[in-house]
Amino acid sequence: MVDQSRLDGQWTTDWQEALSTRALRMKSSVIRELLKVSMLPGVISFAGGLPAPEAFPVRDFRDAFEWVLEHEAVPALQYGPTEGYPPLKDYLIEAMAKYEIPAVRDNILFTNGSQQALDLLGRAFIDVGDTIITGSATYLGAIQAWDVYGPRYATVQLDGQGMRMDDLEETLKTNPGAKFIYVMPNFHNPAGTTLPLERRLRLVELAGEYGVFIVEDDPYGELRYEGQDVTPIEALHKENTIYMSTFSKTLAPGLRLGWIVAPERAMAKLVHAKQGMDLHTSGLIQHLTYDICQRGILRAHVRKIRKLYRERRDVMIRCMEEQFPPEAEWTRPQGGLFLWVRLPERMDTKELLKLAVEEKVAFVPGYAFYPGGSGGHNCMRLNFSNARPEMIEEGIKRLGRAIQRQLAEIEGA
Amino acid sequence: MVDQSRLDGQWTTDWQEALSTRALRMKSSVIRELLKVSMLPGVISFAGGLPAPEAFPVRDFRDAFEWVLEHEAVPALQYGPTEGYPPLKDYLIEAMAKYEIPAVRDNILFTNGSQQALDLLGRAFIDVGDTIITGSATYLGAIQAWDVYGPRYATVQLDGQGMRMDDLEETLKTNPGAKFIYVMPNFHNPAGTTLPLERRLRLVELAGEYGVFIVEDDPYGELRYEGQDVTPIEALHKENTIYMSTFSKTLAPGLRLGWIVAPERAMAKLVHAKQGMDLHTSGLIQHLTYDICQRGILRAHVRKIRKLYRERRDVMIRCMEEQFPPEAEWTRPQGGLFLWVRLPERMDTKELLKLAVEEKVAFVPGYAFYPGGSGGHNCMRLNFSNARPEMIEEGIKRLGRAIQRQLAEIEGA
Repeated sequence: MVDQSRLDGQWTTDWQEALSTRALRMKSSVIRELLKVSMLPGVISFAGGLPAPEAFPVRDFRDAFEWVLEHEAVPALQYGPTEGYPPLKDYLIEAMAKYEIPAVRDNILFTNGSQQALDLLGRAFIDVGDTIITGSATYLGAIQAWDVYGPRYATVQLDGQGMRMDDLEETLKTNPGAKFIYVMPNFHNPAGTTLPLERRLRLVELAGEYGVFIVEDDPYGELRYEGQDVTPIEALHKENTIYMSTFSKTLAPGLRLGWIVAPERAMAKLVHAKQGMDLHTSGLIQHLTYDICQRGILRAHVRKIRKLYRERRDVMIRCMEEQFPPEAEWTRPQGGLFLWVRLPERMDTKELLKLAVEEKVAFVPGYAFYPGGSGGHNCMRLNFSNARPEMIEEGIKRLGRAIQRQLAEIEGA
Repeated sequence: MVDQSRLDGQWTTDWQEALSTRALRMKSSVIRELLKVSMLPGVISFAGGLPAPEAFPVRDFRDAFEWVLEHEAVPALQYGPTEGYPPLKDYLIEAMAKYEIPAVRDNILFTNGSQQALDLLGRAFIDVGDTIITGSATYLGAIQAWDVYGPRYATVQLDGQGMRMDDLEETLKTNPGAKFIYVMPNFHNPAGTTLPLERRLRLVELAGEYGVFIVEDDPYGELRYEGQDVTPIEALHKENTIYMSTFSKTLAPGLRLGWIVAPERAMAKLVHAKQGMDLHTSGLIQHLTYDICQRGILRAHVRKIRKLYRERRDVMIRCMEEQFPPEAEWTRPQGGLFLWVRLPERMDTKELLKLAVEEKVAFVPGYAFYPGGSGGHNCMRLNFSNARPEMIEEGIKRLGRAIQRQLAEIEGA
């Protein structure tokens, strides 16, 4: 029996006061908060980077799970090595060889999706005040992962082919001692651009010249709907590049399974960091994914969603042509999950989002992709993979209405 | 076609030089490296904290998976909320209520095992130079998680009932401004001790008096083999305590699923931290675990392994009585997974481990549990849950031989 009187009126911690200085830099992701709004009933969401749920290969997952529990239950359920399940690495080695990436077992590390890979790189490499070079618009999950480590961001102008190499050179010149350059060469999130081979080669040269390394984030490389594959930076200069990818877009995000390919001399520290963070990524998930891969299901599934997402991209573009004002512009990405829309300069997509939510449609406003929020005020990112074509049609109609309402407000003001 | 000559002789990063100061504090865990040795063929390992693999409820996992894919495939495979799957929280709320822990949905957060919970707390609360109060011997995974954040450790003497409250008071007095007290009140790892209710009450009072909070790590609470449950600290003063537990020991570590119960005012920051770290813990794993729980399988499984592990604890103690020198002492824990053995003062278990590995048996030497390695030179931790009784008998025989060899070397020297 506890004598409650002893506990009455006990002092308690001021939890704000107790936080680390690091924690004061943490902010909730705009996108995660948006996902909550966009899950309200009746809202058509183009906000998240969600795969088409109806395409998940559910039956294949069941078969794979059965096989794993029949043949590999103990290693899948027991503690496992931090480095990850070797047969799944072998599958990736073969899959990445198609893109000329020369990986080996010892330079692959599994992570809980790409997000953990980003966190791991921040932990291993970023000190407070370090300079990280990114595109002027860049993946907001990367910013969220790294803000906690206190870097400053130096940004490089993007054009229709991604990072401009003249501006990268200028940025490297004016930011001596920068730590690394973060690039998404394939179907950039949010810009949708693909960096041509000539720029990739120049990027490798510039990184070498200015003594920085390259972080190549490639979640969508397999999701190309037209055009030719371009050699990854990892294949051009693996000794100075850390490559990362994920099963989230090609298979299922709920697995939380991604991977890093890093130079062997960098790998020991990444493994130690991962140990301290969560020992290892779920063995059950790794074994399950391996079985899906080795049966050829992943390859077949990727072929299927390429067709599906290509169709959805085209529907969205056609609808925007019909519904959006003529001054609006957008990328026509060769792959990936996103369209980047530039509305007339006088518009503000942060305000537009409020009108859009009233119309029951959601997107991510452009400012969310700019480190520090200083740009993209008239831009927005639209996801085309998640909603069915008829919902895309309806959603773009609603968004068109919200745009008309904001334009009318501006004219009226 | 890539012009390879452009890439010849490119400068590459010095990866050691590029590391953050934080990364220089990262070390590989002794235990993880030991697990590698202990996986060599023929070695009987008492080193890891591994559950009995033959007890994993494999058939039940298969049924649960079938159910999840039939009824909840999309939410399980899609991106999900950082906070976690609400029905699994409801299950835990009920399960923890048995121990008088008053949890609600909004103060539970899922993590990738306890290890990520420890990392999360380090990230949210520890600045370089902060003082953390731990037992003189403590869980080495916690040290590994926190070292990267650069705290100093102030340690409190343990006796046969865990932390000594007189020494805790002294430690609080001599370390003003300490951040938190880390305790494992049930079946301490490595010491095997259980903190009596009176000490828990005193701990709450002292924490309040000196203005620090309490981190209560409870991975083994459900694995009690004799005696009465003792009220958790979380139930005594939840406003000043962060509680954490895991499914790793009760169900399967390969799931990588644990949870934190924290005051609501601390929770927002923990959720933001988790977002930046990996967005969320696998939905597939959360749904699967929920189905296992709600079918009553977890409860039945815990009853089964309690019986199994109790028997193994008793076998190990009986064998030590027969095989170890009379000066050796050990705890008789009321639950958990470990025995803590104190050999004669003149022995050194770090050296003993080399002899033990020659004899094909492994354990964790005591120094690994002391922050900074400054203690426990003649102690060792033995796990009794993983090996079958006949292997425990054989392993303790081998360990007895290794001890005899070291004693002979010392006498001979």
